[in-house]
Amino acid sequence: MNPVIYKPIGVIYSPFKNRVGIPRQAVGATEVSAKIEIFGEYIDGLSDLDGFSHVIVIFHMHLIERSSLKASPPWDNKEHGVFSTCSPFRPNPIGISVVRLESIDRNILNISCIDMADGTPVLDIKPYVPDLNPTKDIRLGWLNGRVKGMNKSKSGDR
Amino acid sequence: MNPVIYKPIGVIYSPFKNRVGIPRQAVGATEVSAKIEIFGEYIDGLSDLDGFSHVIVIFHMHLIERSSLKASPPWDNKEHGVFSTCSPFRPNPIGISVVRLESIDRNILNISCIDMADGTPVLDIKPYVPDLNPTKDIRLGWLNGRVKGMNKSKSGDR
Repeated sequence: MNPVIYKPIGVIYSPFKNRVGIPRQAVGATEVSAKIEIFGEYIDGLSDLDGFSHVIVIFHMHLIERSSLKASPPWDNKEHGVFSTCSPFRPNPIGISVVRLESIDRNILNISCIDMADGTPVLDIKPYVPDLNPTKDIRLGWLNGRVKGMNKSKSGDR
Repeated sequence: MNPVIYKPIGVIYSPFKNRVGIPRQAVGATEVSAKIEIFGEYIDGLSDLDGFSHVIVIFHMHLIERSSLKASPPWDNKEHGVFSTCSPFRPNPIGISVVRLESIDRNILNISCIDMADGTPVLDIKPYVPDLNPTKDIRLGWLNGRVKGMNKSKSGDR
């Protein structure tokens, strides 16, 4: 199957200059502010985005240099298939975060609740609409009972 | 900024052979079943995934041949910036869907509640953990009051 090629639409400016110490989940990082610069050619795509409190950011985890099919998350120390984990060391290091959109100044999105490293290429922005997500009959597999720890955890060098 | 290159990890087999008539949102497509074939080299990444009721599928909308910075969704017929819409005609046609995982047979994921076309390349699979999403102080901008229509809508030729 052919490779898929995307052109970044913007870049993240964040206080996290390297991979270690980044919050593992955006929702736990309420105090962290950052900016997304949307490149000039895409600015017309931002109209009406300012009405949304939260947006979904799809980004390329550019600091990830290796991948593994198994991951050992810190909150249980057992190996799991990488697709059943949030490990960044995955075959395609694509990140998805729901961040709070504080304001938009022309092509700059001021955001908070973020978990991305400085310089991260942004591939897409979508509106966050919680009612489109399923809420019934949810099973969490090996993560059952472990989500609380994820919220406040930060990345180590692993 | 350099382009980002991803290698598909799998492919979707779905009843939707072309772009028209595909449900616009996975959550409304409860009756639709499909399969994801994960390519053999990634099979070890699937362990423990079967404990989850739902997974996030990140996919490349391969039938999308054009993009626009403005979109006119059918449920209000006004133009909006594409990043404030779910239009597939976006600069990078990346799709995200939360689908129900019915079962896994070796490298085949049997799924339902899907909105992807047949032959869609899959870029990543992540566990769906609703508690990681924000639920408070949500504002939906121009989509406010229009979400119900989105759930059951199907794509036209636009």
